[in-house]
This record gives sequence, C-alpha cells and structure tokens, in this order.
Amino acid sequence: MSKKVSIGKKILSANEKYAIKNSQLFAEQKELCLNMISSPGSGKTTILARTINELKDKIRIGVIEGDIQTDLDAERIRATPAPVVQINTNGACHLSAAQVSNALEKLPVVDLDLVFIENVGNLVCPSAFELGENGKVVVLSVAEGDDKPAKYPAIFAKSRVLLINKTDLLDPVGQVDFDIERVKTDARKLNKVIEIFPISAKTGEGMPLWYDWLQREVKNVREV
Amino acid sequence: MSKKVSIGKKILSANEKYAIKNSQLFAEQKELCLNMISSPGSGKTTILARTINELKDKIRIGVIEGDIQTDLDAERIRATPAPVVQINTNGACHLSAAQVSNALEKLPVVDLDLVFIENVGNLVCPSAFELGENGKVVVLSVAEGDDKPAKYPAIFAKSRVLLINKTDLLDPVGQVDFDIERVKTDARKLNKVIEIFPISAKTGEGMPLWYDWLQREVKNVREV
Repeated sequence: MSKKVSIGKKILSANEKYAIKNSQLFAEQKELCLNMISSPGSGKTTILARTINELKDKIRIGVIEGDIQTDLDAERIRATPAPVVQINTNGACHLSAAQVSNALEKLPVVDLDLVFIENVGNLVCPSAFELGENGKVVVLSVAEGDDKPAKYPAIFAKSRVLLINKTDLLDPVGQVDFDIERVKTDARKLNKVIEIFPISAKTGEGMPLWYDWLQREVKNVREV
Repeated sequence: MSKKVSIGKKILSANEKYAIKNSQLFAEQKELCLNMISSPGSGKTTILARTINELKDKIRIGVIEGDIQTDLDAERIRATPAPVVQINTNGACHLSAAQVSNALEKLPVVDLDLVFIENVGNLVCPSAFELGENGKVVVLSVAEGDDKPAKYPAIFAKSRVLLINKTDLLDPVGQVDFDIERVKTDARKLNKVIEIFPISAKTGEGMPLWYDWLQREVKNVREV
C-alpha cells in the first residue's frame, strides 16, 4: 500500500505544476474557472447548456469538455453560443492539469469571464487532481440516492458548490424518494461552507439561485 | 504518458497474482463469482437485496461489499439471508484482488453457490482491475442517460451482463427519456455476446430473466 501512495504523490506533483500554470492564467485574465465533477449521467452537460443560454447576455462562458471517448457532450455545447474545446482522455478516469493547459491554448480566454471544465464522469478520481480551478462544483442527481455524501465524502468535502439535480424526478410528482435535507446535513458535516442548490436543469426550477451565485463569483474575481 | 502506463502495469501485475488466487478458490469450490460495476447510485445494492431474497431457496449467495467509506450497503445486505463482508477502500476508487482475497477468508465460501462482489461506485476504474471473478455485471440506470456505452466503453466491452435498471422511471409512465434500443445497439457494437436485461429492482419488472440467467450460470459452474 505504501508503494501505491508514493506513486500517487509523484503523479500529483507533476500535475500540480500545470495546475499552478493554469491558475496563474486565470488570475492574470481575472477569469473564474469552475471544475464540474459528478458521476456519469448526473446532468453536467444539460446544466452547462442551460446556464450558458440563460446567462449569454451577462457572462461570457467558455467550456472545456472532458470525456473518455466521443465528443457527444462538446456537440451539445456547440449548439450554445459558448466556445468549447474537447479533451478525450482515451480511457483515463480524470482530466489532468496538463490536458487542461493544452485546451486553454485553443480557447479564446481573453474574451471570457468564466471557464467551465466538465470533468470525466466519475465521483471519485477527479477530486484528487487539481486543474488550477477557482472551485469545484459537484453535481448529484436525485436518482443516485441521498446516501452519496456519506459514501463518497472527498468530493463533497472539497467543493464550493453542490448542485442537487433532477428535482423534477422527486416524489410526489416524480417517483424518486430522496431526502434533500439528509444530503444537506451530510454534505455540511464534511464542508461547512458548501453552497447547495437543488435544481432541475430540465425544467429550470431552482436555477436562478445558481445563476446569482455565478454572477457574484465572476464579479468577485474581476474586482480582486 | 508512457511513464503513467508503466506504473499502471505494475499495479495490475501485483493485483493479478491475487486475482488468480481468488479464481482458483472459486474453481475449487465450483462457485460462481460476479463483479458488479456501475456509477454510484445506479442501484447495485437494491438489485442484490432483491435477488438474494427472491432466490433464497434456490441459490446460496454471499456478498462482498466494496465502499470508499461507510457500511451503509452492507447494512442493507445484512437485512437479507446472505452473509456479507464489508471492505472499506478508504478513498481508493476500486477494489483490489488482495482486498477480495482477505474478504473471502471471512465468508463461508464452502456453503455458497454464488459470490457477488459489489465494487466501489465508479464506471471507469474498477473495469481495469480483475478480482478473479467469472464475469462482470455492469449496471446502468436509465436516469444516467442512453449515451453511456459510447462514452464509457471499457466496462461495456468487458461485461458478461448489462442490467439496465430503474425502468420504472421511463417515459411515458415516468419522466425519463431513454432509448433502450440505442443502448443495446451501442453495447453490442462493443461486445457481441453481452446479455442485456432491462429491469426495475424497485418493482421487480424484468428481474425473472436475470434470475434465470443466474441459475443457469450457477448450474454451469457446478457441472464443469
């Protein structure tokens, strides 16, 4: 086991060099960068597409799309006004800061207020690899169950924001039994300052509070 | 990149030694072992609990529960007649064959026909670590979307069975739009012989075909 840990540390250090480079770029550009992390299918791309469309006259957003294979998500973002760069990890379970650094060279960063990085769908590994972002946004779909902060604590401990998505599926309108209060309590046991927004990216319910938070953070970064 | 690949290979070889040890044990005992892999919250534990209860007079099932933290899942299995051993990976994104080997010492293997290993919730990493199982079972909830075999091909390419779970959420009864035929087509492009069962572990819909398959496989292994 100790051997495995030391290998992990070596990879992290190489990664950190690029993470620092990326964060310097964001600081110079006074640009907010958010790293979105979740299981596959929790709705990251739908959240992004709706957010971009609804904030298009207020914030200039760019997207880096991370996927193991395919550019299906980037295709969905291309239908919005946002510029997008696709990274295919070819099997790797998380984005690296070096991959993000390369992608940033292809994004028109000088014209943006906010860069979203949509990480590979994985609630575990991406939480261990800093990309130079200002904050992590973890997405949890109500269909995944309300025990997830307890079972996968690392990402909930590290995130600035928790988006509880697919509230349109909730009982009694929908069929999913999910205790939002349990999730809030468990997430705040790990992270006292995490912002939590229950949303439906499909119907738009709850999204305005998320948009307010984004606009406030973009403003904070601009004024630093 | 080449450095990273060689590290991965070293971990795999250490893992493979234990995987072979485990598979020898299953072969000696004429016991079927299935490694269940999916994203967090796709319903693995619910599928297991229902399967154990409904087959309790036909197959003797034992369970190894893999979780990063907590024994919430093992607790749910303890409410069934099946013996269960919990493994906490303390942050690691997959079960290792060595962990399974230790757990097998605590299971009453001589009294079992079938051992289920419920892996850590992660659609990516566990697919790369053999545990000595006879086959992998990948679970995909319809809430995760029908693009997953294309986007996360490795586990669909390697699995004996694909369980498409939570069909109770499907349109038109439910609110989830999910094309089962697209998933079948995409999964079979990767894996011609994969068995695909659409099920609802909540309502029991579709489960009998899965039970038939399990009983057939247990019989095959007994008669080898």
